[in-house]
Amino acid sequence: MEDKSVPDIVVGRLPIYLRALTFLKADNREITSSQELGDRLGISSAQIRKDLSHFGEFGKQGTGYEIRFLENNLKEILHVDQMWDVALVGAGDLGHALASYKGFAGRGFRIAAVFDMDADKIGTVLTSGLEIEDVAHLSDRVKEAGWKIGIIAVPAETAQAVANTMIEAGVTALLNYAPISLIAPSGIRVEQIDPTVHLQHLTYYL
Amino acid sequence: MEDKSVPDIVVGRLPIYLRALTFLKADNREITSSQELGDRLGISSAQIRKDLSHFGEFGKQGTGYEIRFLENNLKEILHVDQMWDVALVGAGDLGHALASYKGFAGRGFRIAAVFDMDADKIGTVLTSGLEIEDVAHLSDRVKEAGWKIGIIAVPAETAQAVANTMIEAGVTALLNYAPISLIAPSGIRVEQIDPTVHLQHLTYYL
Repeated sequence: MEDKSVPDIVVGRLPIYLRALTFLKADNREITSSQELGDRLGISSAQIRKDLSHFGEFGKQGTGYEIRFLENNLKEILHVDQMWDVALVGAGDLGHALASYKGFAGRGFRIAAVFDMDADKIGTVLTSGLEIEDVAHLSDRVKEAGWKIGIIAVPAETAQAVANTMIEAGVTALLNYAPISLIAPSGIRVEQIDPTVHLQHLTYYL
Repeated sequence: MEDKSVPDIVVGRLPIYLRALTFLKADNREITSSQELGDRLGISSAQIRKDLSHFGEFGKQGTGYEIRFLENNLKEILHVDQMWDVALVGAGDLGHALASYKGFAGRGFRIAAVFDMDADKIGTVLTSGLEIEDVAHLSDRVKEAGWKIGIIAVPAETAQAVANTMIEAGVTALLNYAPISLIAPSGIRVEQIDPTVHLQHLTYYL
């Protein structure tokens, strides 16, 4: 099903389209157009049509896209027509915020476990109900549970070691919040979120 | 100084280069190469050389880049050779994490104020020392202080209204954590951080 030739930058836009469709559906809308999506997203309608054409024919000339149909197709393409368990490492302020974040559940993800190295934190129960586990058990827990996705919310100094541990245990997809570019073997996907990088991107234009 | 013709995608990589250079400097390194930077960042050395060539001649054939020199130049190009005050709206879990985040200070940014609409939160002092202010005063405070950058860490339902208020008051650059694509007039820059979008990008490949 997956077309290997689809550029990664196109893949990166699909979740944005999916989010907009889910938003429209919640608004009781049934049909949309590449023009409307483009206006909402600040992306040209031609770009949207071209991106979607990599995966099939979703729209009808003159009528546009059936929202629920396109939403379901994008969920399948992105493999979020299922629920993914995610291992979170780091129970600082950010880790706490992520563990209690309500924006994962409806969109394919669930924080399955939280790990930290701080003895004062281990054993503490978060508001989400998860108990913070000792990072020393991270490798065994990943292997046992078969988790494929990890979120790294530890300081830069320990992020690479945490990544290595998770990758060795079987994680193949990492979302990294530490302000450092992780080095990962080929076949391992890493997405990075660093708010300062985004802010610096903005200040270029100021 | 700013070259309007530089593609935005190139601008978006400069903060990554800057971060890597600062990291190398902290490691007491003096010289690096596009090859080494590329290996660290998972970007081709040719791409790095091409990106930097938009802004001048920073390297010497055969010797590479002088780290401190290139770092200083990138800071100037990105306008982070100064400290920017940032207005943060939303004092939930994420807002708390951002207000106490230590990764802004050394890289050009300082959370100058935090706003929320929750009467129970307003007046509370955060660990960073900032007192949560009433979002009703957001517009006046932005105008008074002349803040140009805002961070939105409120739920999706209120994010657009918060953005509108800030933009009307003079903010021209927004970092949006709400899981919704903000609509902003031309001339206003918006960067979006939605962890679920990143996770869905990853699961495409799983």
